[in-house]
Amino acid sequence: MEPAILPSMRIGETWYRTIWPSDDGLAVEIIDQTLLPHLLEIRRLQSVEDAAEAILTMRVRGAPLIGATAAYGLALALRDDGSDDAFEASREMLAATRPTAVNLRWALEEMAREVGPLSERERADAAWTSAAKICDDDVEICRRIGEYGLLELQKIASRKGGESVNILTHCNAGWLATVDWGTALAPVYLAHDSGMAVHVWVDETRPRNQGAALTAYELASHGVQHTLIADNAGGHLMQHGMVDVCLVGTDRTTAAGDVANKIGTYLKALAARDNEVPFFVCLPSPTVDWTVRDGVAEIPIEERPPEELTWVHGRTSGGNVISVEISPAGCPAGNWAFDVTPARLVTGLITERGLCDASAEGLATLFPEHVR
Amino acid sequence: MEPAILPSMRIGETWYRTIWPSDDGLAVEIIDQTLLPHLLEIRRLQSVEDAAEAILTMRVRGAPLIGATAAYGLALALRDDGSDDAFEASREMLAATRPTAVNLRWALEEMAREVGPLSERERADAAWTSAAKICDDDVEICRRIGEYGLLELQKIASRKGGESVNILTHCNAGWLATVDWGTALAPVYLAHDSGMAVHVWVDETRPRNQGAALTAYELASHGVQHTLIADNAGGHLMQHGMVDVCLVGTDRTTAAGDVANKIGTYLKALAARDNEVPFFVCLPSPTVDWTVRDGVAEIPIEERPPEELTWVHGRTSGGNVISVEISPAGCPAGNWAFDVTPARLVTGLITERGLCDASAEGLATLFPEHVR
Repeated sequence: MEPAILPSMRIGETWYRTIWPSDDGLAVEIIDQTLLPHLLEIRRLQSVEDAAEAILTMRVRGAPLIGATAAYGLALALRDDGSDDAFEASREMLAATRPTAVNLRWALEEMAREVGPLSERERADAAWTSAAKICDDDVEICRRIGEYGLLELQKIASRKGGESVNILTHCNAGWLATVDWGTALAPVYLAHDSGMAVHVWVDETRPRNQGAALTAYELASHGVQHTLIADNAGGHLMQHGMVDVCLVGTDRTTAAGDVANKIGTYLKALAARDNEVPFFVCLPSPTVDWTVRDGVAEIPIEERPPEELTWVHGRTSGGNVISVEISPAGCPAGNWAFDVTPARLVTGLITERGLCDASAEGLATLFPEHVR
Repeated sequence: MEPAILPSMRIGETWYRTIWPSDDGLAVEIIDQTLLPHLLEIRRLQSVEDAAEAILTMRVRGAPLIGATAAYGLALALRDDGSDDAFEASREMLAATRPTAVNLRWALEEMAREVGPLSERERADAAWTSAAKICDDDVEICRRIGEYGLLELQKIASRKGGESVNILTHCNAGWLATVDWGTALAPVYLAHDSGMAVHVWVDETRPRNQGAALTAYELASHGVQHTLIADNAGGHLMQHGMVDVCLVGTDRTTAAGDVANKIGTYLKALAARDNEVPFFVCLPSPTVDWTVRDGVAEIPIEERPPEELTWVHGRTSGGNVISVEISPAGCPAGNWAFDVTPARLVTGLITERGLCDASAEGLATLFPEHVR
């Protein structure tokens, strides 16, 4: 089964999505993101266990892509066993993989709504179709986010009179975090493709280095100008007028506009406010958790293994990919994966329905159907 | 020539300073900090070129230790040639090694003041004595900073009723950054030695990982409780009440209280203010640049090789210390070593003469001799 929309992003001469059904129709295939930027390796997911493992170990990551992978995971489960019990067990297994991203839960609920009412025999095919639709919808959502974000970049570009627009981003909210296009990077790709001069400051994003490993990789692959920086550097750049705008993604946004995103996002938002740099969060609406308002108090923050901090993965000068320990042996370490940026620090939310204030009122103007 | 004051810091069963005259009196010896935490190796500096190389490649680093090493570098130069020309050439070579730390310039000026008026034959011995005095003075200054900082920790401890005081620090401003005791960590060591329960959140401090490599190492060596965290994590911890106070050092503080310190310090100061966490900067007065007021506009920020960011140094599981590349081959990277925290974000400056406001007025109360 081919995707309804062709991929928009390329690595070298090949156009990719991050997840797609295998040619034999028996599995889905993903790019194993734990091996990037050193190796481009496609991995086949044949069961719900494979899908859960891929999410848990971050072979796939990024809120939208996690949701898409979970949807296909359920579809794979239903092929083997269409019963209510099997369905519930698979939902629970997938839901437990990552606690912060809300798209995961959203995708599982979408799937339940579509296939739950069907008979056991009908479920497998319907689930496969629904998972494919979640993917195609995500592509279209991201493209629209890109178009609305592009309007903001065009305003900055016209003020700068053709000088390159400097965008700071954190973690990876590019096409590798979604099915295609990306969220925060979708406007950048559209700007680049339209001929606008853009340059991206890429936060390295410790501890997993998604900036260095994924964002720098996908920007280079698509030919977009960029410079890798330490997570510590953004404040200095903003103090010196070297950042025109911050664009980031989010793993969960509350109904009041608080934004949970990769750890360190909050620090950049503080620097942006202190230096009057616009700070936009780009998100598909399934990333909004309409049940939650106070992000700092209510969003659970995933804690991951300390070894992600104390050991670093890289390529030796001889070309071998290995891990090295950077701290004293046995050093205690803490590894929180996300932080929450309060709505007051966010200039605006860029969604598939346009730009709005990061507030309950702002979100209500674009998504009135969710106002309770 | 033995130091007048015995070392206060230990690694295992041995007490160390970071720099000391060799037993044969012909050189100085340092701990090569580029090899920590993996190897403890003593390196002999026999010439001014050796001293300049050690500063440039960061075998020694930290504003006070850079000053001490530069002083001994000049003393080594004068042993070979006591002429004005040789003296000037050595001063220039040393001054050019690191542009941001002002102690370097201060130490060179101190040396010039002491030995400049002397005859060529008298200079070598006088310079050796002056360098030793700069070291001993630094130890005493740091001890006093520790005592004044301890008063602030005691206030917090008494509010917490015996619960551990959580201190966040950035980079390494411990004894490895000075001759002994440290600046930001001097209060922590005195608190620990006095039996107070303390716990340090250690910012990893990319790109050179001084937190992981040096601060975690020296805290562990001295038996102080600590947890390594990503530079991105401090804001999240402060939002959740997990940081009682921030203590950092500085490479140059302006006469108006702006603070240049390791890149990323500014971001932590923003988070501290946003969460009402006290943010103290600990500094020996030679770190104040009385000629400068506006730190962001006037302090030159060193740019270092991009490879410090794109390559990471660590220990394999087999025990070999090697470097690995973490980004795509050829990835462009920017590496600014410092940023400036405006005085408005600093709760107070802790100096060898006590605590003062981070302002021209505050500094004038403690250092009236510098008011112009």
